[in-house]
Amino acid sequence: MLDLSELHPSLSDPALTSMNLLNEVADRYPGAISFAPGRPYAGFFSVEDVHRYLRVYVDHIGPRVARDRLFQYGRTKGVIQDLIARNLAADEGITADPESIVVTVGCQEALFLLMRTLRADERDVLLATTPMYVGVTGAARLTDLPVVPVESGRTGIDLDDFAAKIDKCRRDGLRPRACYLVPDFANPTGLSLDLETRLALLDLAAEQDVLLLEDNPYGLFGPRMPTLRSLDRHGVVVYLGSYSKTAMPGARVGFVAAGQPVRGGGTLADELAKVKSMISVNTPPVAQAVIAGKLLENDFDLRAANRAETELYGRNLRLLLDGLARRFPPPSRVTWNRPGGGFFAVLSVPFTADDEVLAHSAREHGVIWTPMHHFYGGQGGHRQIRLACSLLTPDQIDAGLDRLAALISEWEQRGEQ
Amino acid sequence: MLDLSELHPSLSDPALTSMNLLNEVADRYPGAISFAPGRPYAGFFSVEDVHRYLRVYVDHIGPRVARDRLFQYGRTKGVIQDLIARNLAADEGITADPESIVVTVGCQEALFLLMRTLRADERDVLLATTPMYVGVTGAARLTDLPVVPVESGRTGIDLDDFAAKIDKCRRDGLRPRACYLVPDFANPTGLSLDLETRLALLDLAAEQDVLLLEDNPYGLFGPRMPTLRSLDRHGVVVYLGSYSKTAMPGARVGFVAAGQPVRGGGTLADELAKVKSMISVNTPPVAQAVIAGKLLENDFDLRAANRAETELYGRNLRLLLDGLARRFPPPSRVTWNRPGGGFFAVLSVPFTADDEVLAHSAREHGVIWTPMHHFYGGQGGHRQIRLACSLLTPDQIDAGLDRLAALISEWEQRGEQ
Repeated sequence: MLDLSELHPSLSDPALTSMNLLNEVADRYPGAISFAPGRPYAGFFSVEDVHRYLRVYVDHIGPRVARDRLFQYGRTKGVIQDLIARNLAADEGITADPESIVVTVGCQEALFLLMRTLRADERDVLLATTPMYVGVTGAARLTDLPVVPVESGRTGIDLDDFAAKIDKCRRDGLRPRACYLVPDFANPTGLSLDLETRLALLDLAAEQDVLLLEDNPYGLFGPRMPTLRSLDRHGVVVYLGSYSKTAMPGARVGFVAAGQPVRGGGTLADELAKVKSMISVNTPPVAQAVIAGKLLENDFDLRAANRAETELYGRNLRLLLDGLARRFPPPSRVTWNRPGGGFFAVLSVPFTADDEVLAHSAREHGVIWTPMHHFYGGQGGHRQIRLACSLLTPDQIDAGLDRLAALISEWEQRGEQ
Repeated sequence: MLDLSELHPSLSDPALTSMNLLNEVADRYPGAISFAPGRPYAGFFSVEDVHRYLRVYVDHIGPRVARDRLFQYGRTKGVIQDLIARNLAADEGITADPESIVVTVGCQEALFLLMRTLRADERDVLLATTPMYVGVTGAARLTDLPVVPVESGRTGIDLDDFAAKIDKCRRDGLRPRACYLVPDFANPTGLSLDLETRLALLDLAAEQDVLLLEDNPYGLFGPRMPTLRSLDRHGVVVYLGSYSKTAMPGARVGFVAAGQPVRGGGTLADELAKVKSMISVNTPPVAQAVIAGKLLENDFDLRAANRAETELYGRNLRLLLDGLARRFPPPSRVTWNRPGGGFFAVLSVPFTADDEVLAHSAREHGVIWTPMHHFYGGQGGHRQIRLACSLLTPDQIDAGLDRLAALISEWEQRGEQ
């Protein structure tokens, strides 16, 4: 009989189980209002869109090419990199050679490919701003790549800590290969790097010879700020993109743009494709075709295509922040940050907000949220919770905040030890 | 600057580069007739099929559920496992709990998940029948899992060697966790296990506590033989399926059925899903929907749905084998096996048929094939070539064999040292 202790050690790691735990809470209390899921709102979609996107793409490449692309294995790098390059130019002012792009099964696969590729031996480590998305911690565990946390500070990355962690790693005989971060409306913090920090980070990374893995799933949903990649004069940025929030989650299409040359090989993209050929062979061409159709139909401008979504997310975020302000007027021991966009805000509460409190909250108060400790690998965030509101109506936000306030008030009255 | 020697060692491994090399030959000589690709014939497909399959699936689950499934992230295990279970019952007489199934991005991802999960530490090894598909070797390298080759013998697996290799591993302090094989019309050998070997293998695997990873991409294309999984009374078989050959390569939908319980965990499928959640999160629901539509439209009977394909592949294989018999009448130093179905046959030639000879063959004779040494990790098969004919017309097979005969004759006249 199989035994968990004789399977890969990552399977016993909290990073791989915490998402399951959180989903179970949501499943058990379907009537609860949930501030947990960082999912895109699907109300503007219809199934006919899929058919139309497919047709637009087939018209674009012609029926003969289309049959080959849809019904055969395709190139490992993908079949729509030229269209993705045009989208990067339109939305982000990024110039990327289509050959430097690898289309992936969501951004998660891109992250996994990067980790597998950059981990040569036990000396290699990844830096990542903390708190961090559990997909980073989990993929790192699967590739036996230690993650060294870098403080987020007030702007998304604490540059002093970044430099200090690199120094410390090198003194310990380790090789910090790259630093993962979400510069725009990060998950889970909602923080965004200001321009000054972006420029300084790029110079520091180049000076230290550490790649920056820029993940940008939320950048479109808020005021525009230049991506690290568009500011990069050193060739130090690997750009990870996702169409899950901006086009369609059900296609699971993401990508990585990594034109960095590799001595003795091709580009980093070429090496990532070699790894991908042994994991997923290629990203389903049918899914790529749907995303391609959406890009073509919108003249590659997804910022414009997402105007309604952006407005809805922005309204919800304002309702959330205003609702918090009304319920917790100063002076209050309940505080929160005020992201300018994206899906997330972080609330600090005067008690330990762990999985047990979450279960109580769901059961007794009918409101669900995400304990922040999951994003710290258990090493912090014990009195913080992440709030997302992308899927909620104004009424749900209002009622949800009332329930949350009731939970907080109950806990404050108990008086925590 | 990045350096190949400082990236994951698998990137310098022949397993990860040989597919690229072979594809490059095909790209460089587009006029050559190619016996190389083991790809399904797409001539019976039309783009409208994709639209129809999608509609059939949406009708099946209803428009409201469909919108959620197509436009949101789905469960990591997948959204169509109930339909896959019905397909397994119809096509293979397999009874599988839908919860024991994980839908994957092609069968390759299933293989990768299994390897990552079963590799707990440096003592673990995978057995696999040799010669083997390079996707096995490559995925194993990415998970740092050594592969111990087991002779294929005359029937697809040499049971004595299987037992001997397990013994040897254990004496060396290693843990043979599983044995990978393709029991039906294997890639690259075309061999199929007879019933007696299947039954003996199941008993032996159970006795030795070694899982059997049964990969079955070609079983539908030839006379039916019970799968290992359908004969398994011990719970020792993990079944890997692929819809790339039987439904649509461009959807990249495969699956693994692994109901084995795990002490301290759930089922093996549950553990595989935890790993998958950190690699691809889930298989694109859009791609799953297309496959689901095909299953529904054909009442889950893909053997019937593939009658035209099966007939075409069978005809091509007969033309290939008959054409070889006409060109190399006995006594001849050129010999070959006679698979009863599938995509592949193996030709033995009286000279070393390596990548250089292949390049010469493509350039001077206009015919492409696959050197078998790629499937032996360079440790054998130097005088063998794999022939596939799933994509060729009768005229191409005829002309291709003439060209192949010309190459062989040239090499025989040279007289190899």
